Amino acid sequence: MIITSTSNPQIKEIRKLRDRKARSESGEYYIEGLRIVGEALDRGEPIQRMIIAPELLISEYGQNLVGQFRQQGGEVVEVSRQVFENFSLKEGPQGIAAVLMQTWTELSSVAVHPGDCWVALDSIADPGNLGTIMRTSDSTGCRGVILLDQSTDPYDPSCIRASMGALFNLQLVKASFEDFSSWKRATGVAVVGTSDKAEQNYHQYRYPSSLVVLMGSERQGLQPRHLEICDQVVSIPMRGISDSLNLAVATAVVLYEVLNQRQEAG
Amino acid sequence: MIITSTSNPQIKEIRKLRDRKARSESGEYYIEGLRIVGEALDRGEPIQRMIIAPELLISEYGQNLVGQFRQQGGEVVEVSRQVFENFSLKEGPQGIAAVLMQTWTELSSVAVHPGDCWVALDSIADPGNLGTIMRTSDSTGCRGVILLDQSTDPYDPSCIRASMGALFNLQLVKASFEDFSSWKRATGVAVVGTSDKAEQNYHQYRYPSSLVVLMGSERQGLQPRHLEICDQVVSIPMRGISDSLNLAVATAVVLYEVLNQRQEAG
Repeated sequence: MIITSTSNPQIKEIRKLRDRKARSESGEYYIEGLRIVGEALDRGEPIQRMIIAPELLISEYGQNLVGQFRQQGGEVVEVSRQVFENFSLKEGPQGIAAVLMQTWTELSSVAVHPGDCWVALDSIADPGNLGTIMRTSDSTGCRGVILLDQSTDPYDPSCIRASMGALFNLQLVKASFEDFSSWKRATGVAVVGTSDKAEQNYHQYRYPSSLVVLMGSERQGLQPRHLEICDQVVSIPMRGISDSLNLAVATAVVLYEVLNQRQEAG
Repeated sequence: MIITSTSNPQIKEIRKLRDRKARSESGEYYIEGLRIVGEALDRGEPIQRMIIAPELLISEYGQNLVGQFRQQGGEVVEVSRQVFENFSLKEGPQGIAAVLMQTWTELSSVAVHPGDCWVALDSIADPGNLGTIMRTSDSTGCRGVILLDQSTDPYDPSCIRASMGALFNLQLVKASFEDFSSWKRATGVAVVGTSDKAEQNYHQYRYPSSLVVLMGSERQGLQPRHLEICDQVVSIPMRGISDSLNLAVATAVVLYEVLNQRQEAG
């Protein structure tokens, strides 16, 4: 049976996943498009159900994805084109979406092994920025992202779009600053922060073999209590009239420096 | 006299500047907020008129800006709070905006001096990305940005917001690929492109003392005709599951490498 009404309860539930509160209550999130749904299936992510509009899903690749998911006993909800376009977040929807369970890692269970790099973000506000940082974190081989205090949600649709699938390859952790601080003390992991006031140039500094790169919020940067727990604070040189970089840019500049140093060390 | 009607012709003109076509016809653009209007005034940018809502513009700094502009013989349009909120692009508007003349540099007049770095972007689509790239270009001491073919408009409000004032410190050039290519041949300037398929690692390459960093579009990267005119094509290493970086991130990673090498060379 094809769902043709946008007021169908299942459709309402899907639309609700745009809101953080609904996502937080159900522990679910929504992804859309051939590429990301295909990646989720390939990687064995916890897909609760697929939602397809047969009229829109015309590629063989897409039909194979649905066939593969059905064979695994997965639930496939069929909807009309109009219904799909109602909840779709894309222009020119491809007629395939999925609802997945969120996957969080507890900070207390995170062991930092030699060579591991993690990114911690304090109160990051913009989900697009977070998604871009996740994409770069994955590209530089980081293990995961630790979201401190009032950070935006990595399962926000704008974050998922910007992360380009990287969310499947990163461990995601939520923690208060206090818990992060205790975890740092308990594990002894090195924390490297960034600040425009630091004297140590980020490029001249030799990064430890395992570390957490700690970045402040878009508006405020790192606060004194954050700087206090850092083993080192580095600054990125600034020419020109701007006094700061975009947060996703600053994070990328530091993460690629860490990666370059590792590659040089072999 | 305070304008209290949103259908006043002057107000209509201001609202129209959201559209690229209207900006292109008038050669004007719109900026808003204390910080950027203050910066425009400080730097002697060609402000055509200021628009203020006295009820919202309560800071002494803001009132000083208006006084300074009036002393220079500048035209100040006063509007009611409701009218200002009608055309404002900000949440919590500060009651100060300005209309400026766009400032473009002709490619044929660009001479690349020793030590100069320029950024050329092919068909960049997203104004937020462009603004972020402008912010980073300024932060790394670049002279300007060359927008090739169907690129988005640096005077788009989303670009201006992301550029954080950097647009005042960069030369902006629009050119077809053909003209860029002729200019490169005529001036002999080195062009360094990026591609995920290049064998030369971006960090191991020694950049020439003056150069243009050429970046492809968000969707397609550099096309064969672009790669052909490059003196060198470099790649940024990628770990993880993503096969590319965000365009603004990739540009920043290369520009900071260029800056680091210059600082090391003294």
